[in-house]
Amino acid sequence: MTRYELFYWPDIQGRGEFVRLALEEAAAPYVDVARLPRSKGGGEGAILRVLDGALGPRLPFAAPILRAGKILVAQTAAILQFLAPRHGLVPRDAPSQLWAHQLQLTVADFLVEVHDTHHPVAAGLYYEDQRKEARRRTEHFLRHRLPLFLDYFERVLVKNGGRHPVSGRFSYVDLSLFQILEGLDYAFPRAFRAVRRRIPRLQALREAVRNRPRIAAYLGSPRRIPFNTWGIFRHYPELDLVPRGGR
Amino acid sequence: MTRYELFYWPDIQGRGEFVRLALEEAAAPYVDVARLPRSKGGGEGAILRVLDGALGPRLPFAAPILRAGKILVAQTAAILQFLAPRHGLVPRDAPSQLWAHQLQLTVADFLVEVHDTHHPVAAGLYYEDQRKEARRRTEHFLRHRLPLFLDYFERVLVKNGGRHPVSGRFSYVDLSLFQILEGLDYAFPRAFRAVRRRIPRLQALREAVRNRPRIAAYLGSPRRIPFNTWGIFRHYPELDLVPRGGR
Repeated sequence: MTRYELFYWPDIQGRGEFVRLALEEAAAPYVDVARLPRSKGGGEGAILRVLDGALGPRLPFAAPILRAGKILVAQTAAILQFLAPRHGLVPRDAPSQLWAHQLQLTVADFLVEVHDTHHPVAAGLYYEDQRKEARRRTEHFLRHRLPLFLDYFERVLVKNGGRHPVSGRFSYVDLSLFQILEGLDYAFPRAFRAVRRRIPRLQALREAVRNRPRIAAYLGSPRRIPFNTWGIFRHYPELDLVPRGGR
Repeated sequence: MTRYELFYWPDIQGRGEFVRLALEEAAAPYVDVARLPRSKGGGEGAILRVLDGALGPRLPFAAPILRAGKILVAQTAAILQFLAPRHGLVPRDAPSQLWAHQLQLTVADFLVEVHDTHHPVAAGLYYEDQRKEARRRTEHFLRHRLPLFLDYFERVLVKNGGRHPVSGRFSYVDLSLFQILEGLDYAFPRAFRAVRRRIPRLQALREAVRNRPRIAAYLGSPRRIPFNTWGIFRHYPELDLVPRGGR
């Protein structure tokens, strides 16, 4: 079996976490390269070398990046689309795989909006340099976008049998929805409490994923990096606003 | 041959334009549904019905949406990944297709950042209600992000033979790069002039795409919606800042 190499920033969950969850659920052998000591080729330098072209002319723009033998894939959704059929993390038929990928791309869009709540001006500036704009963006996000995305995924469950978004079966999209719900609950505990009654099926899916034996083992291990205020999901109490009204 | 149905907002290029360019280059038979008169099932209502589930339980989150017989696909990059191999718009081997998709996903990320220059607070607010934040975001975008993305795609060309990003052959990614360069040049003519000398290969690719017979015919036809200030690429003179310094 291929031993995968994952290249992702070593101190955050970030987008890499969607790949880590899939690899863990698959019990696939992998090395989280940048988390190795520098003496063993780890550290952020390992990522920078790949971005710089060390593994060939198909330059990734950003991490996460997965190496599988001769294949190098970047872009979270593309990595998952590549990995999932190799490990039974998606049904075998092409339409289900296309649908799973489409959902993952919508998760990715949602994630950009979550990130930009604390970085509405520029990813290259500190949060502290864009607090005012962050507050304004977050207000809109929590009032309009958060319920829009959550209602969408809840409706997808309702329309597709209630338990899983893809063809009535577990897939990597379940893992991704779990991760985004965990992140929202961490970043916006008050605001999330205000919306969670709207999404009973998503909440049930979240608990089901948490209790999968390999995921439970992973979450209890030191391999799971805790949420923190360097990642996509950040808890800043002043941004955890309870929306009045709603969309 | 399948007659495709494209569901996209009828008054803008937007994300739908990446699909239109691919369909035009392929000379694929398609109907741009929402541009039909209402009496023939067109108008924005046609899109809203699909978003509401009229075509089955695999609900799209947003337009563009492509219908191909029984298949319904949303998410621009997924639509292109689905279409391209059916029409020779990407090489046949799986690694080339994965690489093309990865590039398209990076184009999609770039596009979000372009959009958010004029909508840094909320897509649901008017530009006029977020002008101050837009100016600040655009300054950072033009100084840091625009050169970062353009340099990346230029380097991809350099590393992959100079003319095409994917396997030395024309692909839909050429079309997408053309579109993003056209849009940037429309939205930020002064700022774009300041960076274009850094990207000679991208500029050559852009001209080559413009001169492809089917693309040239399309661009000269009424099917090509002009750029305007409702789309992703918007020309607001006050945001067309020439960056000083820069990365």
